[in-house]
Amino acid sequence: MARDSDAPSERVRVKRVHERGSYDRDTVHAILDAMPICHVGYVVDGTPYVTPTLQWREGDRVYWHGSSASRMLRKCEGAEVCLTVTCVDGLVLARSAFHHSANYRSVMILGQAEKITDPAEAEMRLKNFVDGLFPGRWDMLRPMAGQELKATTVLSMPISEASAKVRTGMPVDDDEDYELPIWAGVIPVRMQMLPPEDDPKNLPEADQPDHVTAFQMG
Amino acid sequence: MARDSDAPSERVRVKRVHERGSYDRDTVHAILDAMPICHVGYVVDGTPYVTPTLQWREGDRVYWHGSSASRMLRKCEGAEVCLTVTCVDGLVLARSAFHHSANYRSVMILGQAEKITDPAEAEMRLKNFVDGLFPGRWDMLRPMAGQELKATTVLSMPISEASAKVRTGMPVDDDEDYELPIWAGVIPVRMQMLPPEDDPKNLPEADQPDHVTAFQMG
Repeated sequence: MARDSDAPSERVRVKRVHERGSYDRDTVHAILDAMPICHVGYVVDGTPYVTPTLQWREGDRVYWHGSSASRMLRKCEGAEVCLTVTCVDGLVLARSAFHHSANYRSVMILGQAEKITDPAEAEMRLKNFVDGLFPGRWDMLRPMAGQELKATTVLSMPISEASAKVRTGMPVDDDEDYELPIWAGVIPVRMQMLPPEDDPKNLPEADQPDHVTAFQMG
Repeated sequence: MARDSDAPSERVRVKRVHERGSYDRDTVHAILDAMPICHVGYVVDGTPYVTPTLQWREGDRVYWHGSSASRMLRKCEGAEVCLTVTCVDGLVLARSAFHHSANYRSVMILGQAEKITDPAEAEMRLKNFVDGLFPGRWDMLRPMAGQELKATTVLSMPISEASAKVRTGMPVDDDEDYELPIWAGVIPVRMQMLPPEDDPKNLPEADQPDHVTAFQMG
């Protein structure tokens, strides 16, 4: 991140359970790269809205996109937004209700969303998004039409004001509770990709590319 | 929902791709019940924040909780918030970049977050949360201490201003693109529970309860 990783801004400093907070660039990037699903927060007339979408990272910037008509994108453009990525890795069952928890990796990025105004750059970013998920796919596709590019907004934000929060491992119970015969542990959770489903309208020669069979996220 | 299901408020009316918008109570409830992970949006000094947490539903209200010291809970109390739940069900690969999409079920709820101030009610809500995820677990646990209850804030909001958005099925390509020998289809995605991991500090007689082995979400 642009700012000194030891000096997070007050806005993104992890307030609770400080040992779970992490500001180093590699941790933040690894979480963003592992999980395209994100939730974007923005404000309309004082009301917060949270919209799920997909993000991708290029260097020290994060990108997301959608229809130019989307309320989310129109309201985010030029505005303060919060982009949060969360991978839930497990549920943590303790011997008391109080110490139940979750294992997770999350990133929160604050900043001002900027629209990519140059159509060539927007198209390049979209290519990077598609190829980031599915290597080599962009060049297999019917080329993007100018009208489609016009109908698509790509937003971007520097990953400068960002924090990661990570919990791993077993429950941490009160000392005396370890004497209790209560099952404690972790139920690990992950995203599972099921076998790809062919579009029934595929031509017979359209085999599943490697980028489909090898796809993973989370 | 309290309001007529045919008349969503302007704030939550699905603006884009209207056929994906759904306001009926059963759809909203089913999504909330399937996925405890949620993202809560709130505003601090004009800046939106999006924090992941777990939610649960009781009747026509949604609940979430955490440490009383949490910034998220302190800032949400009495304020306008947005609680969004998202289940991503698949990635949708089309013959053009433009028609790529995702299959998902999501709910957005707007409203004012209210703190449960009666400790007995707060404890009952927490019991319902734990037992909702893990039936019968609450009564197996070391009872909650008064101090723990004090250190926990339970927030709630009516599910009155809510909308669901759902996409299912294959890509929808431009007519002429179906002639192209490009693989299209869906990569289905779901949450997978891996085998539970015993806390090494469990007493020998602490077997995995059914609510652990049978746990599912998503």
